[in-house]
Amino acid sequence: MVSASFLPVAPGGGRLQPVGIDQIRILGGFWGDRQQLNADKLIPHSLRWETKVGWIENFVRAAEGTIGGRHQGREFADSDVYKLIEAMAWEVGRTGDEDLDAEIERLGALIEAVQGDDGYLNTRFGNPGQEPRYSAFAWGHELYCYGHLIQAAVARIRTGHEGAIVRVAIKAADHVCREFGKGAREDVCGHPEIEVALAELSRATGDARYLEQARIFLDRRGHGILPDIEFGRSYYQDDEPFRESTVLRGHSVRALYLCAAAVDIAVEKGDAELLEIARLQFDATIARRTYITGGMGSHHQDEAFGVDFELPPDRSYCETCAGIGSVMVAWRLLLATGDLRYGDVIERALYNIVAASPSEAGDGFFYANTLHRRTPAMPADPDEALPRANASLRAPWFEVSCCPTNVARTFASLSTLVATASDDAVQIVQYAPASIEAEVAGSPVRLTMATGYPYDGRVVVTVDEAEAPFDLELRIPGWAAGATLGGETVEPGTCRIEGLTTDDVIELDLPLAPRLVRPDSRIDAVRGTVAVERGPFVLCVESVDLPGGLDVAEIEVLRGAEPTASGRGAAIRGRRVRHAAAPWPYGPDAAVAEGDAEFDITLVPYHSWANRGPVTMRVWVPEQA
Amino acid sequence: MVSASFLPVAPGGGRLQPVGIDQIRILGGFWGDRQQLNADKLIPHSLRWETKVGWIENFVRAAEGTIGGRHQGREFADSDVYKLIEAMAWEVGRTGDEDLDAEIERLGALIEAVQGDDGYLNTRFGNPGQEPRYSAFAWGHELYCYGHLIQAAVARIRTGHEGAIVRVAIKAADHVCREFGKGAREDVCGHPEIEVALAELSRATGDARYLEQARIFLDRRGHGILPDIEFGRSYYQDDEPFRESTVLRGHSVRALYLCAAAVDIAVEKGDAELLEIARLQFDATIARRTYITGGMGSHHQDEAFGVDFELPPDRSYCETCAGIGSVMVAWRLLLATGDLRYGDVIERALYNIVAASPSEAGDGFFYANTLHRRTPAMPADPDEALPRANASLRAPWFEVSCCPTNVARTFASLSTLVATASDDAVQIVQYAPASIEAEVAGSPVRLTMATGYPYDGRVVVTVDEAEAPFDLELRIPGWAAGATLGGETVEPGTCRIEGLTTDDVIELDLPLAPRLVRPDSRIDAVRGTVAVERGPFVLCVESVDLPGGLDVAEIEVLRGAEPTASGRGAAIRGRRVRHAAAPWPYGPDAAVAEGDAEFDITLVPYHSWANRGPVTMRVWVPEQA
Repeated sequence: MVSASFLPVAPGGGRLQPVGIDQIRILGGFWGDRQQLNADKLIPHSLRWETKVGWIENFVRAAEGTIGGRHQGREFADSDVYKLIEAMAWEVGRTGDEDLDAEIERLGALIEAVQGDDGYLNTRFGNPGQEPRYSAFAWGHELYCYGHLIQAAVARIRTGHEGAIVRVAIKAADHVCREFGKGAREDVCGHPEIEVALAELSRATGDARYLEQARIFLDRRGHGILPDIEFGRSYYQDDEPFRESTVLRGHSVRALYLCAAAVDIAVEKGDAELLEIARLQFDATIARRTYITGGMGSHHQDEAFGVDFELPPDRSYCETCAGIGSVMVAWRLLLATGDLRYGDVIERALYNIVAASPSEAGDGFFYANTLHRRTPAMPADPDEALPRANASLRAPWFEVSCCPTNVARTFASLSTLVATASDDAVQIVQYAPASIEAEVAGSPVRLTMATGYPYDGRVVVTVDEAEAPFDLELRIPGWAAGATLGGETVEPGTCRIEGLTTDDVIELDLPLAPRLVRPDSRIDAVRGTVAVERGPFVLCVESVDLPGGLDVAEIEVLRGAEPTASGRGAAIRGRRVRHAAAPWPYGPDAAVAEGDAEFDITLVPYHSWANRGPVTMRVWVPEQA
Repeated sequence: MVSASFLPVAPGGGRLQPVGIDQIRILGGFWGDRQQLNADKLIPHSLRWETKVGWIENFVRAAEGTIGGRHQGREFADSDVYKLIEAMAWEVGRTGDEDLDAEIERLGALIEAVQGDDGYLNTRFGNPGQEPRYSAFAWGHELYCYGHLIQAAVARIRTGHEGAIVRVAIKAADHVCREFGKGAREDVCGHPEIEVALAELSRATGDARYLEQARIFLDRRGHGILPDIEFGRSYYQDDEPFRESTVLRGHSVRALYLCAAAVDIAVEKGDAELLEIARLQFDATIARRTYITGGMGSHHQDEAFGVDFELPPDRSYCETCAGIGSVMVAWRLLLATGDLRYGDVIERALYNIVAASPSEAGDGFFYANTLHRRTPAMPADPDEALPRANASLRAPWFEVSCCPTNVARTFASLSTLVATASDDAVQIVQYAPASIEAEVAGSPVRLTMATGYPYDGRVVVTVDEAEAPFDLELRIPGWAAGATLGGETVEPGTCRIEGLTTDDVIELDLPLAPRLVRPDSRIDAVRGTVAVERGPFVLCVESVDLPGGLDVAEIEVLRGAEPTASGRGAAIRGRRVRHAAAPWPYGPDAAVAEGDAEFDITLVPYHSWANRGPVTMRVWVPEQA
């Protein structure tokens, strides 16, 4: 194994180096609370549910040879067990939790018992009484499952463990290289994931075969290898080669996982052209196909991107996993290009998609993250798994339950996103109370970041130790016009402070006044509306906060009104809109709405919505015409 | 058999009596052209495709006992053969076409050979090597298929024929009453249709059992008999009893077919309460869940209604069959209540949904009828059946091909919608060049309607014969403010002219100047936009008509501009909008768009769009802020 820090992503090149979760500790605050919630609730909850719904038992039955006709869950159920193991592995790395470590080994033994001598591993295919292996590339998800197995193994390797999961994953990866390598079977999986996993396994083991296999999969896709389906081959990015594409399209999570892999492959292969292609695709997606929350995916039907500027708030899909996928891509691009603005993308998705998914109690999750809820959602049954995108309040589990474990692995490994290092500098990418140990030009640097961010804009970075002078780069968020460093105004982008040494203290003030935001005029679905942001938070109106039992459909913001801070959110002056009851909703006068008394509209951080019972909610609020 | 005119719908009660397709002849014009297209193209095209894709061969194989494992098409493929036979039957009634008559008998013989001794009939279930009969009520569509079989038989009965289809349908209906009657199996079909068919068969045969069976199905549904599914039981209206519902919901076509049946049952049973429930549900749906085109269904995912005012133009589903279903409901309500305003609903759906589906050449169909096309659709392969809602130009056939034959049966029987009769009056419901023979208080009345409508607003009705004086009622469309009768202004609604006798001439002038229309302020997705209508037509902008290669995303209507007539559509003053290219589409200034030179925006009737190659298109055009 190649030595590395506790790193989810460890590129062999690129402009910035990541810092491991053993070197960056989040010390409470917004993300510290979520890491604690993850340890206390999300991970045990996920293990309990994967046991309850039989996805772990699948491995026992497969090992016994009795799985035929009795497989539980969807084709890709194995992957969620692997993703949970990955979450546990980072959590063991973060905390040293020995019980979790033992649980990983217990699960690893169950999994290892299923694996064939040749490395094939799946509980849904290829066992007695089941369809044959590799008979359903479009929907079978066998390679996708290997991908998550491999990512779990990488987490074990990077946190200093070996054991069953690592053995099994390497054996599976070797099997994949033999079966799907150059000159072997010319197939790709309907769901990209193996690519990003193999690239990281190559980094973790130093074995270039895995990287090459990832590249083969990337370049093989896009030539109509998978069957045409109702959604079109764009659904699984098999409609055109990645290198010829200009924007992400089709199933959002599939597109994002593939794009993340492309960055990894580009960096490891030194393929600057491929890196630029991936960057342009992602930038175009951010500019034209992303919701204000950072959410991606406009279509419920196929969990897919719409076309440019097709971003309906009430049918926004914004799958939690797509938010995580966008963090994966943005993080890799940030490391590769050194452009800290990708930290803006990460911040937006983390605060407004990833943080929105789990309930405050940690016992339910949003799969889809709508920007507009027109009718109050009913609470989900705490004992029943829902279909993937059921229109309820957060559900305890899903039949397609990719999101909960994806949140868990992201939370467990979150601290790596806080800072990076380069040859002569440390970069602060996300603001949170944290201790940071990095290395600049071979010299250790220790920093402490003290902040109440995102509720307080002051960030104090203290240099606890620096053997040699180093520079500090701070990401000034794009929204933070008016930020000051030691009282001096700094522009959004990257702010560099040179020659820091031990005991130096940096004071950054980020402006947290609420901001009125308007949409691009091409986003037809929210024409004539405004939104309010505050710091990294997108805010929303919940009906529970409106006076007199008003619904979110009955309000508008006064023209010229400016938001003011209120609690953790904001307030803005608005009025009630009365709609005429008419038998037909179109006509010369149909749009006339009559306002009456004015009042303050309360807005709260979007991520916190639907924690106070059934409500209606909207992010984009109509503005007085 | 009970004697009746050539009537698709022949209620035993209600305020108005329908007039048969043998008594109303459409004499050219907009709908005459479409009836001719139906005879020349749509019906032969459908027969050719049902042969090509094997749906007719299914009957041959089922009769031979070799269908197991070889069934072609979806579970409900039989129904489209039946719907085609219904279209042919009305066409035979309309024209006396002997070749079509022979074709019906040929198909009838194939079908009869499949029917079991007990009346069961299906090529997809219950045959050797297939799943057992009635093992899949949610998705099996067996009762749905009987429904369309029965409607085909009703068309044969009503046009004076007997033969195989009639024998088979009655045997199937008897089977259904035995199998699913009171005290028998307590099931309902996942797709309503049998109800409306049984009610009409009861009318056509005088056998009250069929009506009672329809009532049993109506009242049995809504109690969670069908399995819960991802879309919820509302998808197939099994979430709450029809009599407790207040608005249509779930799958649009399912909801509309069920509502049509409810009106029929209410009328035949004298159940005024049920009639009122159906009326209120439909009225609420028109007021809050219907697109300006009369289209219904906001969700691609489940072909379903959204919640109130959730009407996104770019994701409008507006299935052609839902447009036909809304005509079915509105027609039954018009007959039952005598309220001619339901003729407005019918007119809107006919001109803007049903007429929009087939291409001008009669060789392709829209399944979904979007109000906003953001990227040019590619032409469909003329030799390949597409999935149901593929985002292309009109397709020659679909894997789910309910729409083409639904259009065909509607066109063939269209003339019945033109006029009705009551005890003392004839009602003109739709304007078209036509001859009308009706009976008022036992006395024959013959009228000729001469008009160039919808392209010319003058309608001249001549009384060719009236044995006794009678009254004439005219539907003045809701949009027709300023209409005049003999030079005198008449109000939208019903205009009654009393005491007409032979040789009287009535001259109605409907104003066909283009009208600017705005949406209800609760329809968030089209806030800040306007549409233009002209006569019964909703207009749209196609990119092919814009100057300088502009796209429909780059225009706005000038504030205060009024549309003027242009060709069969309109023109309205607008300007180009330049959008700033920005890396992130939200911000304090993101909505600022810069206009330049003004020009006329050309609008054409929506139904005609996409007949001139790939274009972008929009009905709702942004208005200068």
